[in-house]
Amino acid sequence: AIAQATPAPVQACALPAFDTNVRPGAGDGPTDVEIGMIVADVLGIDDVNQQIEGDFLMVLEWTDKRLADFGGCRFPITQVWFPPANLLNSSNLRATYTQARNQVSVAEGGRVTYLQRLTGTISSYHDLHKFPFDRQQITMEFASPSLGVDEFQFVPMVDGARLADTLNIEDWDIRGVTISAANSMLSTLQEERSIAAVTIDAARYYGFFLFKIITPLTLIVAMSWTVFWIPPQKFEAQIGFAATSMLTLIAFQLTTSSILPRLNYFTTLDWMLFGATLLVFAALLEALYTGTLARRGREAQAQRIDYVCRFVFPAAFVLFWGGTVITSIR
Amino acid sequence: AIAQATPAPVQACALPAFDTNVRPGAGDGPTDVEIGMIVADVLGIDDVNQQIEGDFLMVLEWTDKRLADFGGCRFPITQVWFPPANLLNSSNLRATYTQARNQVSVAEGGRVTYLQRLTGTISSYHDLHKFPFDRQQITMEFASPSLGVDEFQFVPMVDGARLADTLNIEDWDIRGVTISAANSMLSTLQEERSIAAVTIDAARYYGFFLFKIITPLTLIVAMSWTVFWIPPQKFEAQIGFAATSMLTLIAFQLTTSSILPRLNYFTTLDWMLFGATLLVFAALLEALYTGTLARRGREAQAQRIDYVCRFVFPAAFVLFWGGTVITSIR
Amino acid sequence: AIAQATPAPVQACALPAFDTNVRPGAGDGPTDVEIGMIVADVLGIDDVNQQIEGDFLMVLEWTDKRLADFGGCRFPITQVWFPPANLLNSSNLRATYTQARNQVSVAEGGRVTYLQRLTGTISSYHDLHKFPFDRQQITMEFASPSLGVDEFQFVPMVDGARLADTLNIEDWDIRGVTISAANSMLSTLQEERSIAAVTIDAARYYGFFLFKIITPLTLIVAMSWTVFWIPPQKFEAQIGFAATSMLTLIAFQLTTSSILPRLNYFTTLDWMLFGATLLVFAALLEALYTGTLARRGREAQAQRIDYVCRFVFPAAFVLFWGGTVITSIR
Amino acid sequence: AIAQATPAPVQACALPAFDTNVRPGAGDGPTDVEIGMIVADVLGIDDVNQQIEGDFLMVLEWTDKRLADFGGCRFPITQVWFPPANLLNSSNLRATYTQARNQVSVAEGGRVTYLQRLTGTISSYHDLHKFPFDRQQITMEFASPSLGVDEFQFVPMVDGARLADTLNIEDWDIRGVTISAANSMLSTLQEERSIAAVTIDAARYYGFFLFKIITPLTLIVAMSWTVFWIPPQKFEAQIGFAATSMLTLIAFQLTTSSILPRLNYFTTLDWMLFGATLLVFAALLEALYTGTLARRGREAQAQRIDYVCRFVFPAAFVLFWGGTVITSIR
Amino acid sequence: AIAQATPAPVQACALPAFDTNVRPGAGDGPTDVEIGMIVADVLGIDDVNQQIEGDFLMVLEWTDKRLADFGGCRFPITQVWFPPANLLNSSNLRATYTQARNQVSVAEGGRVTYLQRLTGTISSYHDLHKFPFDRQQITMEFASPSLGVDEFQFVPMVDGARLADTLNIEDWDIRGVTISAANSMLSTLQEERSIAAVTIDAARYYGFFLFKIITPLTLIVAMSWTVFWIPPQKFEAQIGFAATSMLTLIAFQLTTSSILPRLNYFTTLDWMLFGATLLVFAALLEALYTGTLARRGREAQAQRIDYVCRFVFPAAFVLFWGGTVITSIR
Repeated sequence: AIAQATPAPVQACALPAFDTNVRPGAGDGPTDVEIGMIVADVLGIDDVNQQIEGDFLMVLEWTDKRLADFGGCRFPITQVWFPPANLLNSSNLRATYTQARNQVSVAEGGRVTYLQRLTGTISSYHDLHKFPFDRQQITMEFASPSLGVDEFQFVPMVDGARLADTLNIEDWDIRGVTISAANSMLSTLQEERSIAAVTIDAARYYGFFLFKIITPLTLIVAMSWTVFWIPPQKFEAQIGFAATSMLTLIAFQLTTSSILPRLNYFTTLDWMLFGATLLVFAALLEALYTGTLARRGREAQAQRIDYVCRFVFPAAFVLFWGGTVITSIR
Repeated sequence: AIAQATPAPVQACALPAFDTNVRPGAGDGPTDVEIGMIVADVLGIDDVNQQIEGDFLMVLEWTDKRLADFGGCRFPITQVWFPPANLLNSSNLRATYTQARNQVSVAEGGRVTYLQRLTGTISSYHDLHKFPFDRQQITMEFASPSLGVDEFQFVPMVDGARLADTLNIEDWDIRGVTISAANSMLSTLQEERSIAAVTIDAARYYGFFLFKIITPLTLIVAMSWTVFWIPPQKFEAQIGFAATSMLTLIAFQLTTSSILPRLNYFTTLDWMLFGATLLVFAALLEALYTGTLARRGREAQAQRIDYVCRFVFPAAFVLFWGGTVITSIR
Repeated sequence: AIAQATPAPVQACALPAFDTNVRPGAGDGPTDVEIGMIVADVLGIDDVNQQIEGDFLMVLEWTDKRLADFGGCRFPITQVWFPPANLLNSSNLRATYTQARNQVSVAEGGRVTYLQRLTGTISSYHDLHKFPFDRQQITMEFASPSLGVDEFQFVPMVDGARLADTLNIEDWDIRGVTISAANSMLSTLQEERSIAAVTIDAARYYGFFLFKIITPLTLIVAMSWTVFWIPPQKFEAQIGFAATSMLTLIAFQLTTSSILPRLNYFTTLDWMLFGATLLVFAALLEALYTGTLARRGREAQAQRIDYVCRFVFPAAFVLFWGGTVITSIR
Repeated sequence: AIAQATPAPVQACALPAFDTNVRPGAGDGPTDVEIGMIVADVLGIDDVNQQIEGDFLMVLEWTDKRLADFGGCRFPITQVWFPPANLLNSSNLRATYTQARNQVSVAEGGRVTYLQRLTGTISSYHDLHKFPFDRQQITMEFASPSLGVDEFQFVPMVDGARLADTLNIEDWDIRGVTISAANSMLSTLQEERSIAAVTIDAARYYGFFLFKIITPLTLIVAMSWTVFWIPPQKFEAQIGFAATSMLTLIAFQLTTSSILPRLNYFTTLDWMLFGATLLVFAALLEALYTGTLARRGREAQAQRIDYVCRFVFPAAFVLFWGGTVITSIR
Repeated sequence: AIAQATPAPVQACALPAFDTNVRPGAGDGPTDVEIGMIVADVLGIDDVNQQIEGDFLMVLEWTDKRLADFGGCRFPITQVWFPPANLLNSSNLRATYTQARNQVSVAEGGRVTYLQRLTGTISSYHDLHKFPFDRQQITMEFASPSLGVDEFQFVPMVDGARLADTLNIEDWDIRGVTISAANSMLSTLQEERSIAAVTIDAARYYGFFLFKIITPLTLIVAMSWTVFWIPPQKFEAQIGFAATSMLTLIAFQLTTSSILPRLNYFTTLDWMLFGATLLVFAALLEALYTGTLARRGREAQAQRIDYVCRFVFPAAFVLFWGGTVITSIR
C-alpha cells in the first residue's frame, strides 16, 4: 500500500482546530508507526569518509482516528500529528518532495501515509580489516528522541525493504536490504527507544584492486627476483635493480594510501604490501651479501645462494600472499 | 506551442475554491499529460560518478476543463492540479524559474502549459566495456508514483525532444535526443506506471585518449624493443632498460586508473594496457635469457633470438591492439 | 541613470490591483527594455569546465505608464510587470540584492529601473586551437522565451557595458566588454526572439605557460641533444640518456593534460609537445643507429652523423616551434 | 531531563501578547540557562583547515515564569524569549531540526527545554608541534554578545556532556568531552561575558603515520647505508645510490607536506625528516670523500672509514629519532 | 557601544506606518552611518583564488529621530530605514544572525544599532612579486550605490576595527586591521560615493617555504656540484648526475607551480628557481665540456676547470639568491 491515495470526493478537506502535539491513540498503549524503505539507487560508498551516498524512498504509515472522516484528503505535515522520527546516523540528505508535496495522504479510517524521497550521504561505519575482500553491513537507524518505548513503536512494513533493479554503483555488489525494529538503549540519551534499522548488505567487488594494484605489485616483486639471475660480480647492477624495485614499492604504497582513511590497523592489502616490501628488502640484502662474497673470491657460494633464492623467494611470496588472502576471505 | 501565453484581457484571474488533489477528467479514463524536453546544454558527462550535467527545458501540457474560463491567466503551480511527475533517476537539479515564474499558463479551453528550466546533474548508467570507443544511451525517466496507468498517461510531445546548436561539452559527440512513453513495471513500487523516457545518444570522442594515452603507451612499448638492438653482452643495460619501461607502464596505469570508476571488468583500454604490459614483461624475460646465453658463450644463439624478436614483438603488438580495437568498434 | 531613485514624498506607495501579466504599452508595438551590464569583477576563467566566474551588475530600464503616479516609490518585482528576461547560457548565479532590495524603483513618468548584482559562473564556449596564445570572445545572451519579437525588444543602454578598474584575475587580459541587441532565431524554441548579447573580450596572458611549461620543455629537448656529444662507443649512456628525456617528456605531457578539457583536436601547445616528442624519439633512434655503426667498426661515419645532428636537430626544433607559434599568433 | 515533553491536555496552547525581548526574571539577577552538549558523532578532524566535523545535540533549559501555565505546550522559538547564545568559533553548521520542530517545549512551572541537532564543521585551533604524537583539546565556546554577566549566566547541565558509543572517525581517539562555564573577557567585544565551553579531548592515533610514513622513511635511510658496503673504487655506484636516496627523500617530503597546513614551525615529523635528510646527505659526502681517497690510492683509509660508518650512521639515526620521539611523547 | 540594548519596559513596540525608503534627517545634509568591523577569525588566505576567508562582526549605527520614542525596542531590518550599504568586493558571505535576530535595536533618542556576523570568502587583490616574502594589504570596501555623497556618509567608529586574540590561520601574520572612510569615484558607477575601507595588514610567514621548498632546492643544486668532484674521465657518471639534478628541478618547478595563480610575472621564488635551473644547466654543460677535453687528452685543463668551478658555482649561487632575497625583503 505504498504511495497511493484514492482521490476524495470534491468536498472541503479543511481540518478543525487540532492539537498536533498529541499523538494518536494516546490512551491505548504506544502509537505504532509502520516504516518501509526502498533503496532506489546507491550512488557510491566512500571508504575515506565512511559514507554511503544513495537515493531512498521512505514510507511511514500510521492510524490517526481523528482523521477518520478525511479519507482521500492530503494535508501538509505541519497540520497533523507527525511521527518525530529521526535518522540517528549523521547525514546530509535532501528531501526531494518538498514544495507542494511534503504532505501526508489519508485513507479510510484515518490511515495516514507519508512518502518522502531522500537523496544524499549517510554515515556508515566500515570495518576495513579484510579490505579489499571485505563485506559491510551498512545500517541506517531511526528513532524518536522525544517519545519513550511506551509511547512510540516502529513496526517494519511487510515487504518494506526493497532494492531497485539498476544501481549506479560499480565497485560494490549490493546484495540486499532488510528492515527490523527493536527496543534498545540510545547511548546519546541513555534511555530506551524503539529503533528501526535498515541494513544494506554490500560486498566489495575486488576486481579493480586485483587488476590495478595487486597485479602491478606482483610484477614489481617479480622484477626484484631478477637479481638472482644477474651474476654476483655485476654487483652494482644487482643493487641498483633491487633499490629501484624498493623505491617503486614505496611510491606505490604512498599512492594507494589515499584509497582508505587513516586507519590505526592493517588491512589485508596492507599485509600484502608489507610482505612484498619485506621480500624486496630481503632481495636487496641478498644482493649485498652475494656481492661481498664474490668480491672476496667466494663466487661459487654466492652463485649457490642465488640459485636457491630463485625458488625460495617465489615460494615465500606465494605462501605469504595466499595465506593472507585465504584468512581474510574465510 | 512551447512557452507562449497570449495575455489575458485585464480582468480578475482569481480562481474559485478548487480541489487541487482531483485530477482533470477523472471520470473519462486516464489524464493525458504531454511532455517535451529541450536539451539546452550538456555541460559534462562524468564517467567516475556516472552522471550527466546539463541544462534542460521541460514542457508539460494538459487540459483541465475546470480552467476553461481562465484563458490567458497564469497561476502558481500550487493553486491548480499539477501532474505529480518525478524524475526517477537520482539527480541534483536546480529549477531556474522559481520565484515569480514557477507558474502554469492557461490557454483557450483550459489547455495548461508549464515550462521549467532545470540545471544540474542526473545519474546515468554507463557501460564502459568498449571505453574509450564507447557510445552511451543516457536515459532520463519520468513517472508519477501516486497515479496508476488507468489514471495518468504520459504522451510524448510532437517534436518534443530537441537539442541546442552549441553545447559546452568537448569530449562527447551528442548525436541526438529522443522522447518516448510506455507503460512498464516500476521496480521500486512493483506496480505498473506510465513512464516517459528521454534518451540522449552520446558517442565519446576518442581523440584525447588516442593522443594523450595510446600514443605515449605505444612509444613506451616501442622503447622496450631497443633491448633487441643492444648486444646481449651489455646485459645490465638491457635489463635496466626493460625494467624502466616496465615501471613507466605501471606508473602510467596508476595515473589512468582515476579516469574511470572502479570497474569490476576490463575496458578496451585495460586490454590494451594489459597487452602492452605483457609484451614489455616478455622483453624483460628475453633480455634475461639472451644475457644468460651470452654469459655461457652461446652469443650467436642470443643474437639470433634478438634478431627474430625485432620482428615478432612489433607484429604481436600490432595484432593484439588491432584486434582489441576492431572488436570494440564493431 | 543607473541605480538612483529620488525619494518619494512621505505618501502611500500602495499600488492598486494590477494585472502584472500584462506588459506595458501592449497596444503600441513591442515593449522596449533597456539593458546594461557592468562587469564588477572577473574571478576566473576555467578552461576545463568552460566557465567564466564573475561579479556582474545588471541594469534593466523600461517605461510603465501605469506606474506614472508612483515616481519615487520602490516595489518588489512581484508586484509590478517585470521583463521575463533569462540568461540563455547555463549558469549558476547568486543574486546579491535579495531580501529587502529585490525591488524596482520608479521615477517620473513611470520610468522603472531595476538593478541587480549577480555573482557566479556562466558557461563560455572556448575555441582552444591556439592555446595558450588564444583570445576568447565570451558572450552572455539574454532573451525572453515567452514574448515574441513583436511584443518584446531589448535596447542596449547608452554606455551600458562597463568594466571595473581592478579585476581579480591574473591569467587573462580582459580587454573590454560590449553590449548589443538583435532579433535572431532561438535554436531551443525554433522561434525568433530579441536577444541581448554582452561580450567580454579576453586575451590569455601566455607568460605562465612560457615560463612554466615551454621553457622546461625546451630544456628537456636540449638535454636530449647531449647524445650527439657523447662518443658513439658509449652506447648505453646515449640510449639511457635519450630514453630518460623521452620518459620525462611523456610524464610532462600527462601533467599538462589536465590544464585543458579533453579536446578532440590539437592545440598549439599540443603541436609543440608533439614536435618535441618526435625530435627526442629521433635522437633515440640516432643513438641506436650510431651505436650499431660503432660496434661494427664504422666509428668515423657514426661521428660524422653525430656532428651533423648537432646542427640539424636544434635547427629543426627552432623551425618547427617557430612555425607553430607564428601560425597561431597570426 | 533531555528531550522529553509530557503531552499537554487537549487545550489551546495559544500565547497572549508577549514581549519576547524581555528576559525571564529580569528583576532577580541574571537569567540562568543550563546547557548540555551530546557529541553524537565525530566525522573528521581536519588538520589542514583546522576544523572538526561533527554531529552535536545541544540542549538548553531555563525557567520562564510567564510560561508557567503552558506546561505540555510547544512553541516556535520566535514566539518566546530565547537565549541569544552564539557559538563563538567560526563554524558552518546545519540545524537538523528545522521546519516543524525548531520549537521549545514547556514543562511544569515554566521550565523550558530546547533541543537542537547541529551538523557541520567548527574551527579548532591545533598545536601541531608534537605531530603525529599530538593530543588536542578542541573547544567550542558559547556566549551571548548582547547580555552582560549580570543579565545572563550559563550553567553546565549535570551530566551534560556525553559521547556516543560509535564514532565515524578512524584517526583520532576521542577520549572524552567536558562542559564548563565561567565569566571571562570576550576579546572581540572587550567586555566580560558568561562563556560556556565544551571541550573534546582528542588524541591522534599515530599508527597510520608509523606504517605509511615513518617505516618507508626508515627503509630509505637504511638503503643509503648500502654505500658503506660498496667498495670505494665503485665510486659512481656509491654516489648514484646516495643521490637516489636523497631525491626520494625530497619527493617524500613534498608528498607529506600536504598533510598539514603551512606551519611556521617544525613538527616532530619535520624533525625526523630533517634528521633523515642530514644523514642521507652525510652518506653522500662520505661516498664522495672515500671515492676521492680511493682514487688517490689511499684505499685502506677509505675502507676503514666505510667500516666505521656502518656502525656510526645507524647509531646516530636511532639516537636522533629516539630522542625526538621521546621528547614529543613526554 | 557595540551590541547592547537596554530592554524596553513591557510596552507595545508596534511601529506606526512608516516610509522606510526615506532616509533619516533627509533635510539636514547627508545621513551619517557609523561603521565598525571586528575580525573574529581569519580562516585562510587563498593565493590561487585571491580570496580571504574570515569571520567578521559588522556594526552599523545611525540616528533615526522617527524612532526616538522606541528606545529599548528591536525591529526587523525590513520595518525600518536601513543603510543600503554593499560590500564592493566580490564575496560569498553567510549572515549568521538570520532568523529571529536580523534586527536592529533602538536606544535613547532613536540611536539605532545593527550587529551582523558574516562568515565566508572575500576577494582580495594580491601583489605576489615578492612571494614568499610578501606582505598584503587586504581591503574590504563598502559603499551605497543608490545614495550620493550629499545623501549618505560613512563614519569610521571610534576603536571600530579590532582583531580577535586567536586566529585560525597558520601561514600569515595578521598584524592589524584599520578602518577609514572617504569620498571617491566608484569606477563601476562612474559617480562619487562615500566609501568605507577596512584594511587587514597581513605578512606571510615564509618558514614553510624556507623549510619545504628553498631547503630542498638548495640540496638539489648542491648535489649538482658533485660533478666537479667526479674525475672528468667518468664522463657518463657526470652527465647522468647533472641530468638527474636537472629533471628533479623541473619536477620541483611543476609541483610548486600550483601554489600560486597563473601569474604573468616572476615572483621572488620564480627568480630563485630560475637561477637554480641556470646553474644546474651550466653544471651540465661544464660536464660535457670537461668530458670532451678529457677524451681529447687535455685532462689537466679539465681538472683545472673542475677545480675552479668548485668555488665559482657555490659563490654564484649565494650571490644570486642573496641578491634576490635582499631585493624582495627591502
